[in-house]
Amino acid sequence: MNFADRLFDAVLHKRSPLVVGIDPDLRLIPSSLFDLSSARKSARGALAQGVERFAVRIIQAVADFACAVKPQLAYFERLGPAGLEAYEATVECAKDHGLLVIADGKRNDIAQTAKEYAAAYLGGGGEAAKTEERDVAGWLAAADREAPKADALTVNPYLGRDSLVPFLERLNLGQGLFVLVKTSNPSSGDLQDQVIAPAQGPAGDTGGTRVYERVGVWLEEYNQERPGRYGYGSVGAVIGATYPGELSSLRRLLPRTPFLIPGVGAQGAKAEDVAAGFDGKGLGAVVNVSRGILYAYREAPGISFEKAAADRAKELQKELAKVAGLL
Amino acid sequence: MNFADRLFDAVLHKRSPLVVGIDPDLRLIPSSLFDLSSARKSARGALAQGVERFAVRIIQAVADFACAVKPQLAYFERLGPAGLEAYEATVECAKDHGLLVIADGKRNDIAQTAKEYAAAYLGGGGEAAKTEERDVAGWLAAADREAPKADALTVNPYLGRDSLVPFLERLNLGQGLFVLVKTSNPSSGDLQDQVIAPAQGPAGDTGGTRVYERVGVWLEEYNQERPGRYGYGSVGAVIGATYPGELSSLRRLLPRTPFLIPGVGAQGAKAEDVAAGFDGKGLGAVVNVSRGILYAYREAPGISFEKAAADRAKELQKELAKVAGLL
Repeated sequence: MNFADRLFDAVLHKRSPLVVGIDPDLRLIPSSLFDLSSARKSARGALAQGVERFAVRIIQAVADFACAVKPQLAYFERLGPAGLEAYEATVECAKDHGLLVIADGKRNDIAQTAKEYAAAYLGGGGEAAKTEERDVAGWLAAADREAPKADALTVNPYLGRDSLVPFLERLNLGQGLFVLVKTSNPSSGDLQDQVIAPAQGPAGDTGGTRVYERVGVWLEEYNQERPGRYGYGSVGAVIGATYPGELSSLRRLLPRTPFLIPGVGAQGAKAEDVAAGFDGKGLGAVVNVSRGILYAYREAPGISFEKAAADRAKELQKELAKVAGLL
Repeated sequence: MNFADRLFDAVLHKRSPLVVGIDPDLRLIPSSLFDLSSARKSARGALAQGVERFAVRIIQAVADFACAVKPQLAYFERLGPAGLEAYEATVECAKDHGLLVIADGKRNDIAQTAKEYAAAYLGGGGEAAKTEERDVAGWLAAADREAPKADALTVNPYLGRDSLVPFLERLNLGQGLFVLVKTSNPSSGDLQDQVIAPAQGPAGDTGGTRVYERVGVWLEEYNQERPGRYGYGSVGAVIGATYPGELSSLRRLLPRTPFLIPGVGAQGAKAEDVAAGFDGKGLGAVVNVSRGILYAYREAPGISFEKAAADRAKELQKELAKVAGLL
């Protein structure tokens, strides 16, 4: 199993490179979804219940038009344990609707701690499947089986290559990663765009690459050794639609690396800005839109949030499929 | 209020720069702490209960010898909502024992999502204090008040300076950050050590700095404008004890930036390796030890885990106070 195969199978099946980002911002969700009568007992519990309702109805509304959803963990974590329950319900709901789930946590750490993050969001891996419930290790495996597993996790590369290893170990189970490479925000260049000076050391290192290219090449090297049916490996790169020039050069530099492209919509990029992310078959990239879909109802008076989200997702599916060359 | 003042007040009061890392690794915690009879109902719940017991007893054991604890979020997240409840109980327990809490989540994201992370771990800030419970926004403020707040959070800088802003907004409430600068792991140099080439653009940019120095200087610039009573600002830097040369040069480069130094013990660094992190008064840095304290009992047959942890924490307090020049 190869995550890129699963991802691009879904893109072809749905004819859609659209990923719907689930960023449940409490200031923007319809207030009718909250039952605040229970809030005095647990404000976080009452709000998390509204978040779960919102996420479930959004998933139901957009399932036909998207290949995947990308729950943004921060919004769930803000509501504590109840928020994490809402996250897990969101993952379950998306899987029930046949959608892939990309957990957007931008996690990373070193050694055992990175392994814990991988287990938290991608499950316990092969050990969890095999271990019996006889002792703490066995019950930990059972615990890992209890947790809903995402299909992929976003990961931050600042800690270096060894920090990616525990996540890479999950890939042989068909799960994937998306590593931050060139992010969509205005300050992303502060570190990512810095040009690396030629090394004094090994001959042949001529320098001149940017930090984000260096990270991209790590992923590409891994993917070159493990391409799937569509020619892509399972270690993706996050590359913002707000930087179309970089997107284009990275597509050439990283031919076997799948891209997750955020930044279309509220952040200012348009569907046509992501054209360079796709290969000749309309594959190679998926495009995330969050607020533009979730909160479309706020600019569509008299229309339910579900209908507004579905309409906007359907429009984006068409636009992106056309830009990708899938239609 | 200035977080660095609170941190170094605690160091002076305890005569200890020791931070005890709470990394509850289920493979290493005494199995007697787990009541597995309830595991069939919820493996994660049963294990989280054991984790909470372990964390509470460790805090009780080490409270006299440490200025702060640093719960490592990944270990709690692995157990899902129940794990997050154990995290919150750990934070409450540490605060009840007069310890500062550094939440080690290495979080970051952009814009509103970064704000959500700040709210999740550092609380809702000034808004939460002021807002009334009249609508969703009011109940969100109440939710933020329900969540136990850490005193500081670890943050990853890969996304650039704008990604730090939502966290910096918490600092006027006496809370702090520790931004990853030069981490303790073997691959930390993959990105962090890269030398930045001279820019073609603005005159005066001569390049030659390393990525980790660039990040450090962002923090120092902020801290220079807001020093507290001990001369330090509230935006700390994480710098591994495993790189004593870099630690020494960063202490000179960043005179107003407090350091959080991991890597002593299981990762191979010794107490004397962190000497360069301290200033002439024994302040400027705190030193994290996790496994060396938590699991000391595994190398001390016949001694309870609490006693072994307390003994080791006491030894480390003495060693570190001596190295810092506090005694």
